[in-house]
Amino acid sequence: MKRYLIDVAYDGTDYCGFQYQPGVRTIEGSIQEALEKIFGKVVPTYGGSRTDSGVHALQNVLCFDAETSIPAERLPWVLNDRLPMDIRVRSCREVADDFHPRHCDTRKTYSYLIETGSFANPLMRRYCWHVSYKLDVSAMNEAAQVLTGEHDFTSFCTVGAQAESMVRTIYSIGLKRSGDNITLTVCGAGFLYNMVRIIAGTLVEMGRGRWPAAHMTSILEACDRRAAGPTAPAQGLCLTRYEFDYGIA
Amino acid sequence: MKRYLIDVAYDGTDYCGFQYQPGVRTIEGSIQEALEKIFGKVVPTYGGSRTDSGVHALQNVLCFDAETSIPAERLPWVLNDRLPMDIRVRSCREVADDFHPRHCDTRKTYSYLIETGSFANPLMRRYCWHVSYKLDVSAMNEAAQVLTGEHDFTSFCTVGAQAESMVRTIYSIGLKRSGDNITLTVCGAGFLYNMVRIIAGTLVEMGRGRWPAAHMTSILEACDRRAAGPTAPAQGLCLTRYEFDYGIA
Repeated sequence: MKRYLIDVAYDGTDYCGFQYQPGVRTIEGSIQEALEKIFGKVVPTYGGSRTDSGVHALQNVLCFDAETSIPAERLPWVLNDRLPMDIRVRSCREVADDFHPRHCDTRKTYSYLIETGSFANPLMRRYCWHVSYKLDVSAMNEAAQVLTGEHDFTSFCTVGAQAESMVRTIYSIGLKRSGDNITLTVCGAGFLYNMVRIIAGTLVEMGRGRWPAAHMTSILEACDRRAAGPTAPAQGLCLTRYEFDYGIA
Repeated sequence: MKRYLIDVAYDGTDYCGFQYQPGVRTIEGSIQEALEKIFGKVVPTYGGSRTDSGVHALQNVLCFDAETSIPAERLPWVLNDRLPMDIRVRSCREVADDFHPRHCDTRKTYSYLIETGSFANPLMRRYCWHVSYKLDVSAMNEAAQVLTGEHDFTSFCTVGAQAESMVRTIYSIGLKRSGDNITLTVCGAGFLYNMVRIIAGTLVEMGRGRWPAAHMTSILEACDRRAAGPTAPAQGLCLTRYEFDYGIA
């Protein structure tokens, strides 16, 4: 029996999130179905980031145990043949028997896409948040920098979420404009529930001038979800990179 | 009674093309339904480019006749409130009573997006053709230039399509690579049925080395659909611009 680690990209629009849940369509559940078709039995899986309903990924990860003569580098093709087109396995390699993607030091990068302008582009509607206000990207960038480093991010976590600690570390955060589109990129070791979406929703309040950029410090220090802005919608969020600090990914 | 001209963008994935057809979901039919809700009666429409099932647009056009006190510049909002999110009206203006978008001299720009690389990106699957071959973009560009100007494009028209003449003029054509993506852009006065998709399918044959770039001349001169390459799939095609030569758009 060997343990395999796969990289997986998906359009989360038509899924109830990444994590397996009985009776609903999830990314992990769909991969489990594909594995069962290949190996003829239930295959246990160990998922990476538990992205929410409607959230996308260019690189999430998942492990599974299998005994097979199929070389690891062929497994993406075998899996993709049995997966819907909105989930694509992009690589596969063998890892240690006790490897679990959630029990490793990791570095995750999320992007959040905001589209401005009077009218939403229908070709982007599954992948961005359309905001009709004009946004001041430099004010948003200034506010975002306050979040860099290790902080208690209680203000940026949905109330009721279970977490041992509300302290997280953001390695880098920044916003870039390209035409009508603004992309927020956040890189960190891990994130609280809805953290990136609440950061995006709060930065838009700075961008449209409801709050000055300097107000971000008070929001962070409040350690109270009510201090921050709204939770931005799921469809703008994408997990773009999932890196392990032990050099295996 | 006044005639209005609207610009419309849409994701064609879930529609049986632009043109109204009884009993099926089309872009024009959906706009007619929205107009009927606003004006309380059937509103005749005069459509622009009759894009195929699955083809997208950033700018197609449509005219309708209405008697209303709503200013033209407000009509996009009124219409968008009654349209599905995959169709967005982006502008509206009054035109002459006898204006018809298909009876004008026009300049249309289409883009065709080809994605290369081992695995398709699931976030792009509705908007591109995934080709797993490596493609030589300079060979494709060389072959494409043969098509510039006025020619009989019979080789690039689906057999059985009705057209008074097979002669069309391509003002400009070119391909650009950005990472794994190759975008073909074609600008012309008008196009035969499936013409841009057959051009894209033929250029991919040059790009993967099945035919040398110079073979494009023989294909064009053959005036025979069987001489050209396959018809590229609909989802990579997008009508990006629809311009009128009389300075109204």
